[in-house]
Amino acid sequence: MSARPDTPLLDRVQSPADLKQFSDAELTQVAKELRSETISAVSETGGHLGAGLGVVELTVALHAVFDTPRDKLIWDVGHQCYPHKILTGRRDRIRTLRQEGGLSGFTKRSESVYDPFGAAHSSTSISAALGFAVARDLGGQCEGGLGDAIAVIGDGSISAGMAYEAMNNAGHLDKRLFVILNDNDMSIAPPVGAMSSYLSRLYAGEPFQEFKAAAKGAVSLLPEPFREGAKRAKEMIKGMAVGGTLFEELGFSYVGPIDGHDMDQLLPLLRTLRQRATGPVMLHIITKKGKGYAPAEAARDRGHATARFDVVTGKQFKAPSNAPSYTATFGKALVDEAARDDRICAVTAAMPDGTGLNLMAERYPSRCFDVAIAEQHGVTFAAALAAGGMKPFCAMYSTFLQRGYDQVVHDVAIQRLPVRFAIDRAGLVGADGATHAGSFDIAYMANLPGMVVMAAADEAELVHMVATAAAHDEGPIAFRYPRGEGVGVDLPERGEVLEIGKGRMIQQGKRVALLSLGTRLEEVRKAAEALSARGITPTIADARFAKPLDEAMILDLAANHEALITIEEGAIGGFGSHVAQLLAENGVFDDGLKYRSMVLPDTFIDQASPKAMYDVAAMNAEQIEAKVLDVLGIATLGTRRA
Amino acid sequence: MSARPDTPLLDRVQSPADLKQFSDAELTQVAKELRSETISAVSETGGHLGAGLGVVELTVALHAVFDTPRDKLIWDVGHQCYPHKILTGRRDRIRTLRQEGGLSGFTKRSESVYDPFGAAHSSTSISAALGFAVARDLGGQCEGGLGDAIAVIGDGSISAGMAYEAMNNAGHLDKRLFVILNDNDMSIAPPVGAMSSYLSRLYAGEPFQEFKAAAKGAVSLLPEPFREGAKRAKEMIKGMAVGGTLFEELGFSYVGPIDGHDMDQLLPLLRTLRQRATGPVMLHIITKKGKGYAPAEAARDRGHATARFDVVTGKQFKAPSNAPSYTATFGKALVDEAARDDRICAVTAAMPDGTGLNLMAERYPSRCFDVAIAEQHGVTFAAALAAGGMKPFCAMYSTFLQRGYDQVVHDVAIQRLPVRFAIDRAGLVGADGATHAGSFDIAYMANLPGMVVMAAADEAELVHMVATAAAHDEGPIAFRYPRGEGVGVDLPERGEVLEIGKGRMIQQGKRVALLSLGTRLEEVRKAAEALSARGITPTIADARFAKPLDEAMILDLAANHEALITIEEGAIGGFGSHVAQLLAENGVFDDGLKYRSMVLPDTFIDQASPKAMYDVAAMNAEQIEAKVLDVLGIATLGTRRA
Repeated sequence: MSARPDTPLLDRVQSPADLKQFSDAELTQVAKELRSETISAVSETGGHLGAGLGVVELTVALHAVFDTPRDKLIWDVGHQCYPHKILTGRRDRIRTLRQEGGLSGFTKRSESVYDPFGAAHSSTSISAALGFAVARDLGGQCEGGLGDAIAVIGDGSISAGMAYEAMNNAGHLDKRLFVILNDNDMSIAPPVGAMSSYLSRLYAGEPFQEFKAAAKGAVSLLPEPFREGAKRAKEMIKGMAVGGTLFEELGFSYVGPIDGHDMDQLLPLLRTLRQRATGPVMLHIITKKGKGYAPAEAARDRGHATARFDVVTGKQFKAPSNAPSYTATFGKALVDEAARDDRICAVTAAMPDGTGLNLMAERYPSRCFDVAIAEQHGVTFAAALAAGGMKPFCAMYSTFLQRGYDQVVHDVAIQRLPVRFAIDRAGLVGADGATHAGSFDIAYMANLPGMVVMAAADEAELVHMVATAAAHDEGPIAFRYPRGEGVGVDLPERGEVLEIGKGRMIQQGKRVALLSLGTRLEEVRKAAEALSARGITPTIADARFAKPLDEAMILDLAANHEALITIEEGAIGGFGSHVAQLLAENGVFDDGLKYRSMVLPDTFIDQASPKAMYDVAAMNAEQIEAKVLDVLGIATLGTRRA
Repeated sequence: MSARPDTPLLDRVQSPADLKQFSDAELTQVAKELRSETISAVSETGGHLGAGLGVVELTVALHAVFDTPRDKLIWDVGHQCYPHKILTGRRDRIRTLRQEGGLSGFTKRSESVYDPFGAAHSSTSISAALGFAVARDLGGQCEGGLGDAIAVIGDGSISAGMAYEAMNNAGHLDKRLFVILNDNDMSIAPPVGAMSSYLSRLYAGEPFQEFKAAAKGAVSLLPEPFREGAKRAKEMIKGMAVGGTLFEELGFSYVGPIDGHDMDQLLPLLRTLRQRATGPVMLHIITKKGKGYAPAEAARDRGHATARFDVVTGKQFKAPSNAPSYTATFGKALVDEAARDDRICAVTAAMPDGTGLNLMAERYPSRCFDVAIAEQHGVTFAAALAAGGMKPFCAMYSTFLQRGYDQVVHDVAIQRLPVRFAIDRAGLVGADGATHAGSFDIAYMANLPGMVVMAAADEAELVHMVATAAAHDEGPIAFRYPRGEGVGVDLPERGEVLEIGKGRMIQQGKRVALLSLGTRLEEVRKAAEALSARGITPTIADARFAKPLDEAMILDLAANHEALITIEEGAIGGFGSHVAQLLAENGVFDDGLKYRSMVLPDTFIDQASPKAMYDVAAMNAEQIEAKVLDVLGIATLGTRRA
């Protein structure tokens, strides 16, 4: 832990209004102090560092020039919002970031009026800003009032179709609206795609001189001194002249690119834009992710996410890992399969590292596709790869696959195309909180006709499921696995192809059968141990498949036990619901069965450790034990009724 | 029924290969005959007419120039594919379009090798074409072989973010790929948005002379005679010079716009592009929806969809309607609410007529937003409208809301914003078939914490639900209703605000309780009447709410009946699953209850009448009756076990 930085000016800022007292030079100093405070805070908490450091100056400038919270400032994704939180009355809690009971790592409406629209998934900010702008013009009222709407969106996020849809609509409605394109040539990974290349060309200033006329519209927005020909104005006009027509064709006035770390450019330009804009404006700023902190600037990911660290050395304090992560296990298993079958290929939506596909990209670059933040396209692209005879693995986080849901239904499931969905971050995810929870995929995948849905109980099971998916050519198949480390079991040399729709018995017991899907199996085992001490030996089974169900096994469990309890890391509507339907249709309930289904509760669970989150969800060993006792009618002292 | 047209050349076309025998002049004649045949066929079947008539020349030209089915021709949406079906071996069945057992109204992989990638939802074609192009280059193999990939996409469809995501990826991968932008300045409704304006400017030929240099890349793709300065070449270069830079910035070679009805332009240009293209090419053609059939050209929707009609007069044979449609009822009820509360506003994604919002657009244009084909943006835009103090109704078809699912979760549900989801086309939809079925919304909405989910049992209930949604400011709320006519009940003067989470008893009976959600209630009533004849009087209840459940009512039904059967027009995971969870958690199954849940079966159901589709789903009165008898153990003769 390093000493807290000295921040004399920042100490005088309780809320953004306090910034109005400062001169431009002092605001530059505030930015410096804010950078130090951000580094200091994240060194204690860990979290997203690089993105915030890249927008320190922008954060100060926006709050100094605009009138927040009346003006609605919307940070896309929200990874970059820590400096914003420090300026907006949350400095006293900034060292609780991403911890249980602490500040969210993202913007969050329930946390502050200065967060008018929360985020965590990318590319929503322009839609949100447009909604506020329209609400304002319709006379809508809300906390803090309704003034201008400002979206800050990165060059990675703007590659998503949703951002384009929003620009398309904003250009049409022609409402006064500010979009700050924060171009740092990075999202979580380096961005890919034609839009990214386009932005790079704008920045590089290729001689698109013929387009100068196209910038005319924006020239009228510039401050007088800029127009009068001072040195900076020339640079500005030159910057404008190199392009931006793509945005202008969509109806925006485009200004930039400018240096987003230069307060002497940011402040006057924002003031003028605020004074003169009538329709949608796009201000293109160039920033550096990790700016001002050498270890972040030097890192491959520009300090995107970090554990706690030593400020002086940049050394991160990471707990040693006991087992390989599920993500890494998946990545390696996929590469092994790809080595044996050159039809195997992979699709990621801007998350090569997060999904473990970085290994595939290294070994088989021609068969690994990063489609940018574009889950809709990614899923359908994978569907066509399958139609063209390839074996695509579409690797996405559960929560982000929601972005491509219609494509899963319409392009994959209805056409029965053998796309392999590798669903990472299934279940509760810890520090990223509710927005990143993988809660709904079992339900939304398992009710699609023809879809096979598996969940891995441990990392060895995951290897088998990769092999099973690779071998399954009859239609779509999905397998899910959680964030974090595996349980430490031995990994097989090579994955076995599992029989579709067959579960496995773990332990034969009596009275109660615990039917687990996914990695709660460990907790189920622990619960069973504790129950043994009470003389109850539950039967334990790993369903492996949410669809198709192992009907014979389940009906057998039901027939031979007094009680049957399912457990899954998912919301209602998934595995348990399919089991209940099976039991009902087979008349099992007619004569009575103590059936219970343990699913995620009907609430969004805030960030905490996964263990703590599963306590909230009542899905850890202790609660499973309590559930069994309750179902069997065994009175306990001090065990809450779950 | 008019006489069949005379089609001597078309009669010689059994498959696209037969087109190779014809001269260009003969191909022009084939197009004429194909137009007549299309009009004649749709006059008998009804269906989508305007879109197909707009691409008759393009269809002939593509099949004449390219080598289908080896070359993969992908029609976006598929409304325009009837001429394509006639040319690709399905002429003998073209008069079965959209009928039970007949040809699909869309492209469909299972129907023909000439439909390499089916469609029905918009904007998937570029992603699909790119997938085929990549599979080809990776050595993928599939039926028909793998040659070029050609996407035909309308100017409406290209407004969707998914199309942009695909272009962004295609420009980056730089694979040989053809995108035909079929610009008829219409989608189902006139397209809106900045992209649409941009395309109009390209077409209008505004003097963007400075941009001429930008077209240089594409010039090299042109045929020699074009480059040598013939009159047509000049027009072409002029066309190119007026723009297309937006697409070029995304990495495409842009050619056009040209007259898409002029075979003398289409054929040589397609031949040259086919010969010379190396990377992605966009050919921009201008067509007229409904082209060549006066009644279609004159219609407001350019003959988008039609009932059977008289070819000579254009007069449509429509069955007189007995009751207002649910859609119209919704539209009127919303306008009534909007008249009383100026915070009410509405969002549609390019379906003002289909959703009934045309009425809102007429009466309160400043409060009605057509965001283009942009469900992702539309949902989040609505969320921000709600955050800004408005009361937005987001009106989308069940199947299209899938496009905005992540936004429903991330921007609406997690933030508890009071967006009102009006979910049209719930359940099975008839002639549009499986791709348009509203099967999954109960499941994917009801498992979101804080979401209220209602389903209307009839059109009067729908009016109450609009009022209930308007009054519900505490969080998000959704109500679903089917396609087609209501049941003919009297409509209330003004909708009542329903108590959240309260069902209603319809009929008190004995032994079995039928708990209906949605419009199966009519069938339940009929089943109950038939059962009365056997001496069984079922209790009937209308749940109204899939979430929150009317727990007291449901537990009471369970306690006082031998059997409880739920029924809903949705897939597993929805209402019935929530009921089962409630019963399980309350120990109702412990002592036995004959519980059954009637849901849509685990299969995609092909087009037929809704009645016939619900027969396949085993959810009509007869099957409900059979279910009751089966559950009660009453033997029947000739009743299939449902």
